Amino acid sequence: MKILIAGLGLIGGSMAKALKRCGRAADGFDREEVAARALKEGAIEGIASEFCGYDLVLVALPPDAAMRFIGENTFRDGAIVADLCGVKGEIARFVRSAPRNFFYVGCHPMAGKEVSGFENSCADLFDGASMIVVRERDTDERSARFLEEMFKNVGFGRIVCCGAEEHDRKIAYTSQLAHIVSNAYVKSETANGYAGFTGGSFQDMTRIAGVDEAVWTRLYFLNRKNILAELETLLSHLKEYAAALEGEDEAALARLLYEGRLRKEELDRMNARR
Amino acid sequence: MKILIAGLGLIGGSMAKALKRCGRAADGFDREEVAARALKEGAIEGIASEFCGYDLVLVALPPDAAMRFIGENTFRDGAIVADLCGVKGEIARFVRSAPRNFFYVGCHPMAGKEVSGFENSCADLFDGASMIVVRERDTDERSARFLEEMFKNVGFGRIVCCGAEEHDRKIAYTSQLAHIVSNAYVKSETANGYAGFTGGSFQDMTRIAGVDEAVWTRLYFLNRKNILAELETLLSHLKEYAAALEGEDEAALARLLYEGRLRKEELDRMNARR
Repeated sequence: MKILIAGLGLIGGSMAKALKRCGRAADGFDREEVAARALKEGAIEGIASEFCGYDLVLVALPPDAAMRFIGENTFRDGAIVADLCGVKGEIARFVRSAPRNFFYVGCHPMAGKEVSGFENSCADLFDGASMIVVRERDTDERSARFLEEMFKNVGFGRIVCCGAEEHDRKIAYTSQLAHIVSNAYVKSETANGYAGFTGGSFQDMTRIAGVDEAVWTRLYFLNRKNILAELETLLSHLKEYAAALEGEDEAALARLLYEGRLRKEELDRMNARR
Repeated sequence: MKILIAGLGLIGGSMAKALKRCGRAADGFDREEVAARALKEGAIEGIASEFCGYDLVLVALPPDAAMRFIGENTFRDGAIVADLCGVKGEIARFVRSAPRNFFYVGCHPMAGKEVSGFENSCADLFDGASMIVVRERDTDERSARFLEEMFKNVGFGRIVCCGAEEHDRKIAYTSQLAHIVSNAYVKSETANGYAGFTGGSFQDMTRIAGVDEAVWTRLYFLNRKNILAELETLLSHLKEYAAALEGEDEAALARLLYEGRLRKEELDRMNARR
């Protein structure tokens, strides 16, 4: 099983190190200086110059670059090509739009850091995390199963299977909207000198505020309708609290907070049961 | 120095235990069964039936109850009466509205849990946390200094001094708005089955969603104008992201995310410098 990792940033670099940790060697591909560093540090076995010699190609590039990489290169007949991007519908549609001689599986590791790049990658980034593996009617069962087994060996704590559209709906809410809210939250002038005035709520709310706008703008636009729908849902809820405060309606505010608390308790119960 | 703690919930109970840990005994006052439990567990030395015998009275009750307690009871001449509530302006105005024979100091410990009550109190709740001590023109300097010294011994990592109005403006943003956003965030239908679809962003965003509506509705109304102003600021920012997505304006979205990232970096720098 010859493995290639295309893109050796935070995710690809961590995948290379995690694969190495569990005894699987991989070659890598990235800009010359990044690939050289990964080789020097022993994260990869070799630097790839062509992509036909691999049984498994893991594409850890941003979505547009991932689609270009998959569309413009030639892979071995029957190879598994899996991308690790944060949107799945657009990439699945792209891959389906042309005939192919390989098995495509969309994946999304639910792990990250507030920093990026190979220099921040680490072998334990995925330990205990969830890996989403997209299963659609045309997904090759053997390839998906192989990847799921490999991801467990790499350290993932949980494999979640779903369709590409379901993935994009969920992620718009659990991750992408949260980053927008966090990014917007810090913009108040009142944030100056926050440090003595919080027990942790502010830090939790704003931990992920510093998104890389180049990467995230594209992620948002490749999943635009889902994000917009979730953002509008949140805006309509927040406006209810504003109306209760504006209208000095204590009972209405208490009801809104009560509904949120019940909902939180329901989600906690669902999560405990799984 | 005879100390009384009125209200033995999460904050008052933890204060009793933390005072005991640093060698200071306190009496307590609460509903009969709560006070009896605190006494039995050794958190307090005795149960108070009158309040005139104390040099320091720490009022760890919800704001309305705290104002009633301060307004309806008699304290020793020159006693220090300090409340530990989450709003300060309203209570300061209430205390000033009548003549008094004691020194009032408004305090707000920046520590808490997602659960409440004496049963969740602990001696280390305040360890390393920030304690806000309100200093106004009519604050008795000796009383404030005494409290600050005691709070350091109790375990607080930092004492922040500010005016009551500044406190309320800051807290509206760093804590109270964050609880509203969290409470609203969980209301999307998409939250069902979130567990496999997050690397932690969702948990951070919603950790504090389950607020006790009875307590928090009052906190919000006692600081209504500040909360409303911050909520409207956040709403106006969030609407800009929605407009960029709606109008398919990638450059505008990238600029919004960029501005948020710069602001986050600026706040991180401010915080590192202090």
